[in-house]
Amino acid sequence: MEYIELNESRKSVRYFDPERQVDEDTVRKIIEQAMMAPSSYNMQPWQFLVLRDPANKQKLRALAYDQSQVTDASVAVMILGYKDPSAEYIDRVFADWPAKGYMPQEAVTQTTERLKSNFAGMTEDQKILWATRSCNLAGMNLMLAAQNFGVDSGSLEGFDYNGCVETFKIPKEYYPIMLVVLGHKADIEEQTERKMRFGFEEKVWLDEVPTS
Amino acid sequence: MEYIELNESRKSVRYFDPERQVDEDTVRKIIEQAMMAPSSYNMQPWQFLVLRDPANKQKLRALAYDQSQVTDASVAVMILGYKDPSAEYIDRVFADWPAKGYMPQEAVTQTTERLKSNFAGMTEDQKILWATRSCNLAGMNLMLAAQNFGVDSGSLEGFDYNGCVETFKIPKEYYPIMLVVLGHKADIEEQTERKMRFGFEEKVWLDEVPTS
Repeated sequence: MEYIELNESRKSVRYFDPERQVDEDTVRKIIEQAMMAPSSYNMQPWQFLVLRDPANKQKLRALAYDQSQVTDASVAVMILGYKDPSAEYIDRVFADWPAKGYMPQEAVTQTTERLKSNFAGMTEDQKILWATRSCNLAGMNLMLAAQNFGVDSGSLEGFDYNGCVETFKIPKEYYPIMLVVLGHKADIEEQTERKMRFGFEEKVWLDEVPTS
Repeated sequence: MEYIELNESRKSVRYFDPERQVDEDTVRKIIEQAMMAPSSYNMQPWQFLVLRDPANKQKLRALAYDQSQVTDASVAVMILGYKDPSAEYIDRVFADWPAKGYMPQEAVTQTTERLKSNFAGMTEDQKILWATRSCNLAGMNLMLAAQNFGVDSGSLEGFDYNGCVETFKIPKEYYPIMLVVLGHKADIEEQTERKMRFGFEEKVWLDEVPTS
């Protein structure tokens, strides 16, 4: 679909038709597009936990204030931030930089050492903020890709992050960042009108911050 | 442009042609598309500070480790998080929810009061994380929209956030979240090959977190 049409027609969906599924191949295509997002140092610090199994969705719903879209949607995608990447992973990310002309080998060595040392010194909150930046770029792309493949989406902010870690046995290097459900919207009238959007004039400052 | 083509062809650009500008109308169209991103409670907690003036770009470059793309690109867009929205702003966001069937008036009153109280109790870091989530959704959309309009983009993580607050006199309710430069790439051979991307098999867990 044309990007403008897609972007303007995408709308967060809350009520899904529980009878309509999204097949595995489509889920794969959607996530593959999401993963084209840029990221800090090309670190791609995301991991997608795809929950399709009804029992898993039920557990997740209980951790998301019992919001019905979690079980009514076909698939719930939990984007986890890889907030504490291993030294080996960091080396893999930078391995092709010298040959592709992004950085000489010496600079790569310095940068990777600095990054490893930075992560070691970061607080848990700083790591989560760092991962959130890249994960949410991928998250936007996930919702647009879904729309492109005729799949409705909705993101949920309200869920028990630490509860998810425990229930789904998320390794300690990862943390839940964003939750997006994918499916097909229910055929109901409610909530079809788009909510208010602030306009360009109010939300954009050209070269100067207005003094109030 | 078709979304898949657009998403797969977008690539962060580091070297821009300083002679090629992006006209004001195109910048406007790009930001208008970016603002179609979803956000927490539809709060749209973003503000776009568009820096086109050479003196401003020069100041920004000094705050961004002297990275040449800041001045070579036509426009630098600083996405500011509206991390401490006013009570009046929150009320405006929810004003149309009852009529559009999103929430009865009573629930709107409860929710807005709770949100105002939440913001009052949040630490500065929590506010920044909250705004980052929505701002980075808009940031991804900004880069895709640029690509759609034939404009190259690059995002920069390395800049002096607090220095920007001071230099550009950012009001205390806002904080720099993301920096995206827009322009046209320089005609050079370097850095044209895409960096390594992790694949689906490595980055996706289907229903179960593998035990290592």
